[in-house]
Amino acid sequence: MPGAVPNPLRDVLDRRLPRIAGPSVLVLFGVTGDLARKKLLPAIYDLANRGLLPPGFGLVGFARRDWAHQDFAQVAHEAVREHARTPFREDVWRQLSEGMRFVPGELHDDDAFDKLADTVRELDADRGTGGNYAFYLSLPPKLFPTVVTQLKRSGLAESEEHAWRRVVIEKPFGHDLKSAQDLNAVVDDVFPPQSVFRIDHYLGKETVQNLMALRFANTLFEPIWNRSYIDHVQITMAEDIGVGGRAGYYDGIGAARDVIQNHLLQLLALVAMEEPLSFTADAIRAEKEKALSAVELPEDLETATARGQYAAGWQGGASVVGYLEEEGIPSDSTTETYAAIKLGVNTRRWAGVPFYLRTGKRLGRRVTEVALVFQRTANRVFSHTATEEQGANSLVIRVQPDEGVTLRFGSKVPGAAMEVRDVSMDFSYGESFTEASPEAYERLILDVLIGDPPLFPRQEEVELSWRILDPIEEHWVKAGRPEQYESGAWGPKSAHELLARDGRQWRRP
Amino acid sequence: MPGAVPNPLRDVLDRRLPRIAGPSVLVLFGVTGDLARKKLLPAIYDLANRGLLPPGFGLVGFARRDWAHQDFAQVAHEAVREHARTPFREDVWRQLSEGMRFVPGELHDDDAFDKLADTVRELDADRGTGGNYAFYLSLPPKLFPTVVTQLKRSGLAESEEHAWRRVVIEKPFGHDLKSAQDLNAVVDDVFPPQSVFRIDHYLGKETVQNLMALRFANTLFEPIWNRSYIDHVQITMAEDIGVGGRAGYYDGIGAARDVIQNHLLQLLALVAMEEPLSFTADAIRAEKEKALSAVELPEDLETATARGQYAAGWQGGASVVGYLEEEGIPSDSTTETYAAIKLGVNTRRWAGVPFYLRTGKRLGRRVTEVALVFQRTANRVFSHTATEEQGANSLVIRVQPDEGVTLRFGSKVPGAAMEVRDVSMDFSYGESFTEASPEAYERLILDVLIGDPPLFPRQEEVELSWRILDPIEEHWVKAGRPEQYESGAWGPKSAHELLARDGRQWRRP
Repeated sequence: MPGAVPNPLRDVLDRRLPRIAGPSVLVLFGVTGDLARKKLLPAIYDLANRGLLPPGFGLVGFARRDWAHQDFAQVAHEAVREHARTPFREDVWRQLSEGMRFVPGELHDDDAFDKLADTVRELDADRGTGGNYAFYLSLPPKLFPTVVTQLKRSGLAESEEHAWRRVVIEKPFGHDLKSAQDLNAVVDDVFPPQSVFRIDHYLGKETVQNLMALRFANTLFEPIWNRSYIDHVQITMAEDIGVGGRAGYYDGIGAARDVIQNHLLQLLALVAMEEPLSFTADAIRAEKEKALSAVELPEDLETATARGQYAAGWQGGASVVGYLEEEGIPSDSTTETYAAIKLGVNTRRWAGVPFYLRTGKRLGRRVTEVALVFQRTANRVFSHTATEEQGANSLVIRVQPDEGVTLRFGSKVPGAAMEVRDVSMDFSYGESFTEASPEAYERLILDVLIGDPPLFPRQEEVELSWRILDPIEEHWVKAGRPEQYESGAWGPKSAHELLARDGRQWRRP
Repeated sequence: MPGAVPNPLRDVLDRRLPRIAGPSVLVLFGVTGDLARKKLLPAIYDLANRGLLPPGFGLVGFARRDWAHQDFAQVAHEAVREHARTPFREDVWRQLSEGMRFVPGELHDDDAFDKLADTVRELDADRGTGGNYAFYLSLPPKLFPTVVTQLKRSGLAESEEHAWRRVVIEKPFGHDLKSAQDLNAVVDDVFPPQSVFRIDHYLGKETVQNLMALRFANTLFEPIWNRSYIDHVQITMAEDIGVGGRAGYYDGIGAARDVIQNHLLQLLALVAMEEPLSFTADAIRAEKEKALSAVELPEDLETATARGQYAAGWQGGASVVGYLEEEGIPSDSTTETYAAIKLGVNTRRWAGVPFYLRTGKRLGRRVTEVALVFQRTANRVFSHTATEEQGANSLVIRVQPDEGVTLRFGSKVPGAAMEVRDVSMDFSYGESFTEASPEAYERLILDVLIGDPPLFPRQEEVELSWRILDPIEEHWVKAGRPEQYESGAWGPKSAHELLARDGRQWRRP
């Protein structure tokens, strides 16, 4: 197999060979949480299984549990067996688990952090991790100040020559502009901006990254990717589940802060942005920030936004309770579980084209998609009746599930009349590539260890998003209670009215 | 079934209800030929079965056979049972066969034509066909003068008030401009231009008609349907069979006259033309003629054309003989079985975009398609290596088999690198519509009986096509023998060189 011989030079030149992480230690805070068990630990194993982690790799868990190293390894083992994407291989696991350590303790306990520092340094010496440490804070943001202060105090955050320190934080990056700035100030005090990796796992998804390939590696799409041809854009993230076990976190946050501020505005930025000069982090982030800076709120926030709370109903053949009846939710909560907003992007490319963003829980089905809906044709040749069954052309990027792209257009109906009806062309990621799509967290953890930041939003993007959302949230506080909508349906009446006022309608994905 | 109630008003207004032929007689010359047996008689039955022929319909066969009416009905019955597209229904057949008559005779025999005239008039009275007669000349063109003269002499061609006469002729419409004009003069002497229906059965195909729907009923395609985005166009009609039983007709005619002059230049016209003001025959034909008038031959016909003769080889697992060894072909024949030409279309839309047309026998497989190959992107962001496996974007209209449309574009390969590879989106006529596609001849015979001519080229188009082809044929006569190419391969070396000189290559369909 001559093709399988690694060629590091080629790798450096074109980045097509798999990029492999260098020697490093990953310190994971919050190892007992859901995210660690279902996503992070399995992703780390998958990376190891794909040969993308070096022999000199170590994983350290920190939590308030009375565990020995082996207990942590056992927990990780179960998580991997249950949730890993790739097959379980004993030799890979052994190699990985030999580099696993656990440090028990409270976050405010100096001794525990001193112990952590000792453990990391011993591991560094044992495994040859090159003195490179990444700290993954899979924790509620209110605990960030404690952790980064401890990392600083214990000397772990201190960078050395030829060795790096990186910190990974998960959303929410604050709950408004002010709190996002405060949160950033805490992290910024210890880690320089280029060492902070903010995870928006949507950006790790293949289809989201494919948005750039679609637009900029093809001749077909970019010429019609503008206000001359596009009528409007719909960006949807719909969940079929309710608030579930996240009640404590979710109430008081709501759909807009939970999903629109990060995932949907990031998708908007990728759709709306101009072509970056290169795929470097700086170039891509600069274009995304330009797009976000150009976002404009409509003047009347009452008619340009909609929100709702799911009521009881039927879903998946079972009866489900309403949001206000969920365990842990106050019965007078005004938190929205559905949010829709209309935005403009005031650039030469997009002026006058509305971007409709919506997200909600307990909707018809689980789906995330970006739909570019084209203007109708001048329709001079075809009579109205000949195109009765034809909608507008659309290009839909399906982010999940069934990742791919759909093009919807009109075609002649077989028969003697010149009648046109909508048909679809479909591209499916799963069917088109033999390469399996890595999980978003695999990609993102690898990027952290390699130090490749294009897929991580920087603080400027976070702040721009809050600048967009803050006035809406303020308006909603004044506007009172959200409208109830039936579980299993597609959101509140006001959301449909939002588009109907513009003579449009939501896609039924 | 309220939807099934006919609504004649709606039909008139929007043509979406099936258009039904009015009372009429179809007189078929050449009923003993292959075309009549395999295509025409089955298509007539299929139309009857679909309810598109009126009770007042009659079919008269004329041939040099000692048949009674029943013998003809029996021959037609066998043809229908073997080749009809729709299921056999006894009641439909009975109704249709009751209106069948046969007249035996020679084409130069006045008595036979007088008998034909009597038969047609009797049938007209018996069945109430309204005095409307269509004459379908499924005959070699050299016999046209005799037939039309007889039709005139016997009074059959004479039009009456409130009744129509139409004549249907099949290609070849001459073998050069002069002979086409002569042939037309013969027909034109008896039938006015609007009564002459020239059949190019490719224009009856659903996918060919869909070309206009694709372009003009959608927003997506028309903006990129021009020289700013399209690098070149390839129009291919490939056959896997050899000359077979057509040796007598084919030799001396060749691939260019047999296919390019009609089918491929008509496809070129539909791709290149501007939007017609309506779907009336006049409007569509006017645009097609403008496109054909704008066609320009390259200066050097030697490098802009290629032709070949198939040599012995393997096809479909069997050894096959070369063209010169075929029965009925002179061993020194210079007739080409493969022809490729490069044309320009000198309009604002197409200037500088080459149209490459090719057709041949004994090629890799049977396929007819129109491929629009787009320019490569400026490719500023993606490195050459990241797009190594990416070809140019293309939009392919698949005419046969597997009718549909394919869009080929680049998509990100799953994995950590930003690597792009070609993928396809596919629209399949068969899978997308429950309506079965009628056979081209069904559509065209119905159009003759209804008197709806948009899908029939008029004499001007025929002459424009010969104006394009004549200089090429003249050049080839001087150029000597065609190059041999292996059966089962994709044509002669010179055809590949033709595109290679332009830095392009033929698609492998």
